[in-house]
Amino acid sequence: MKIQVEKLKEASVQILRGLKATDEEAALVAECLVRAEMRGIDTHGVYFLKLLSDRIDAQMIRIPTALKVIREDKTTAVLDGGNGLGQVAAHRAMKMSIQKARDFGTGMTLIRNTNHVGILAFYTLMAAEQGVVGIMMSNSAPSMSPWGGAEPFLGTNPLSIAIPGGLDGPVVLDMSSSVVARGKIRRAERMKESIPLGWALDETGSPTTDPAAALRGTLLPIGGPKGYGLALMIDILAGLLSGSRYGPEVKTFHQPEGPTGIGVFTMAIDIERFMPLPQFRRLMESYVTSIKGTRKAKGVSRIYLPGEIEREKEKQSSAEGIEIGSELAKDLNTLLQKAGSRLRLGEE
Amino acid sequence: MKIQVEKLKEASVQILRGLKATDEEAALVAECLVRAEMRGIDTHGVYFLKLLSDRIDAQMIRIPTALKVIREDKTTAVLDGGNGLGQVAAHRAMKMSIQKARDFGTGMTLIRNTNHVGILAFYTLMAAEQGVVGIMMSNSAPSMSPWGGAEPFLGTNPLSIAIPGGLDGPVVLDMSSSVVARGKIRRAERMKESIPLGWALDETGSPTTDPAAALRGTLLPIGGPKGYGLALMIDILAGLLSGSRYGPEVKTFHQPEGPTGIGVFTMAIDIERFMPLPQFRRLMESYVTSIKGTRKAKGVSRIYLPGEIEREKEKQSSAEGIEIGSELAKDLNTLLQKAGSRLRLGEE
Repeated sequence: MKIQVEKLKEASVQILRGLKATDEEAALVAECLVRAEMRGIDTHGVYFLKLLSDRIDAQMIRIPTALKVIREDKTTAVLDGGNGLGQVAAHRAMKMSIQKARDFGTGMTLIRNTNHVGILAFYTLMAAEQGVVGIMMSNSAPSMSPWGGAEPFLGTNPLSIAIPGGLDGPVVLDMSSSVVARGKIRRAERMKESIPLGWALDETGSPTTDPAAALRGTLLPIGGPKGYGLALMIDILAGLLSGSRYGPEVKTFHQPEGPTGIGVFTMAIDIERFMPLPQFRRLMESYVTSIKGTRKAKGVSRIYLPGEIEREKEKQSSAEGIEIGSELAKDLNTLLQKAGSRLRLGEE
Repeated sequence: MKIQVEKLKEASVQILRGLKATDEEAALVAECLVRAEMRGIDTHGVYFLKLLSDRIDAQMIRIPTALKVIREDKTTAVLDGGNGLGQVAAHRAMKMSIQKARDFGTGMTLIRNTNHVGILAFYTLMAAEQGVVGIMMSNSAPSMSPWGGAEPFLGTNPLSIAIPGGLDGPVVLDMSSSVVARGKIRRAERMKESIPLGWALDETGSPTTDPAAALRGTLLPIGGPKGYGLALMIDILAGLLSGSRYGPEVKTFHQPEGPTGIGVFTMAIDIERFMPLPQFRRLMESYVTSIKGTRKAKGVSRIYLPGEIEREKEKQSSAEGIEIGSELAKDLNTLLQKAGSRLRLGEE
């Protein structure tokens, strides 16, 4: 069923309020989850509210979120996420990095001891929309093996970079270091679909098209040893350097197996230290125009910039609403009821 | 033929002195090129001396290198490479970034208007060997199309990250954003070998195994749109933000078609702002030990860290010398003669 954006946001806020999040937390987390839905990244969308509720029931997350600045310097900081809402920690960290970048050129804030932060583009776009470069990385529960290995050790550790300028808003990359995100394989399992070869290996290290076998095995990194190296560097910078968990010690958010211990790296870069922002914007505009004017491959009608498909989807969702499956709607309605709300999805 | 490291270095220095490099420049460039050879990256090795000589003959590079600091702030700087030796600019930039990191937590120095800098790991290792994280990116001549495109626009823009600690020296990633570096395809062409499917597309955008067709066509990025996005972000951060050339305006170093206009991003991060260095080193040691202890895939006898194969090759080269093909030796001997040196390779 199609749900209007504002209604889905309101439902998310009410569910989060029912889970004891503060007004401010509920608004932020709802915004982040619904924006993922709007951008077509439903693996990072309102589906998380159920996981969050289960995690609260298991007493494995602390809400409201108690953040603590562990170390702070002019350009750097470490934030303890208090095993609370990842979005709250990530938003605060990126805000600190942006301020530091404005004051000193670059800002780098690491987070330890937090949980799933949602789509990284939510935060890097926040930086880019304020005219600074945003960079973010996060480690995650093990699903890829080291290159040549046969057991999960590294997460699909994502990287996002957002750049102000472009034709119609920032250019934003948000990618995992695996060929596909684990969420896509979970989705295939839910939809009872097979997965293409080259996405994952089974427990024995052999190629598989069965999502269930892939989830028991390991995901393949992009570019073989390159993606392995990238995931490892992200684990070191976001997990190890932040004083958080890393490698196989990071727990999934999808099962209540204990605090996830996720570590996050945020960075902002002030463009004005390199050239005036209007000049940079003009360069970006001409750059993006050139890319879109490149000669196309056979059968291709349009060249997209990173994040452009998602931005168009976001506009479309604004106008037309968001498609929510009936099972998810049922889960959300149960959560609404649990929260004491009379709002229901699918009853317009 | 096998050439001892010190002899190859001395030959390189003499060739570079003959090309009017200062003593200091000659020593640095020789060190960088020979270290690439030692690490088994012969596509970035002494082969460049011939290209450099051709470029000087065509009056398209300025030696000695005249560096100029265009902008400088506490944590950031922009260096003009004066269309000189890339290694000289890159070394200076990373040195500045390291000092800024020590003083303020992070340091970020961009370079505009330079040339091929050799292997990025040379500079990121310099940082890691001094106990700070080194990060580096560079744009390069167009060889990949935007995703969905059919003409070269982006380079195989490399990224390197080096981390202090590990069992036997820093862990260092040095990767291009293409499935393979263009040098590997050029090497296949020189060796008259075919290339695997999945490395490149021909001019029409179709898969090819012919290195010559691939060199006329485009290279494939790692992870499809992900590698495209990564290469694009590197082009923006190293090329556009530095005020250097970017996209198709960057020229190859392999043909004297004009100044290359390469842009470079260097960054250093002071670990001590996050935790005491000895503590970080202990964490890294246990991390690396865990990775190497991972259960192995069938037929795999050992798990390698990024940069570990190269480090072992470097040790081996130290002991046994470097294998140089007869054609390359002939080129180097011609350059030695031109430089007025009586040294010759292959005459022990």
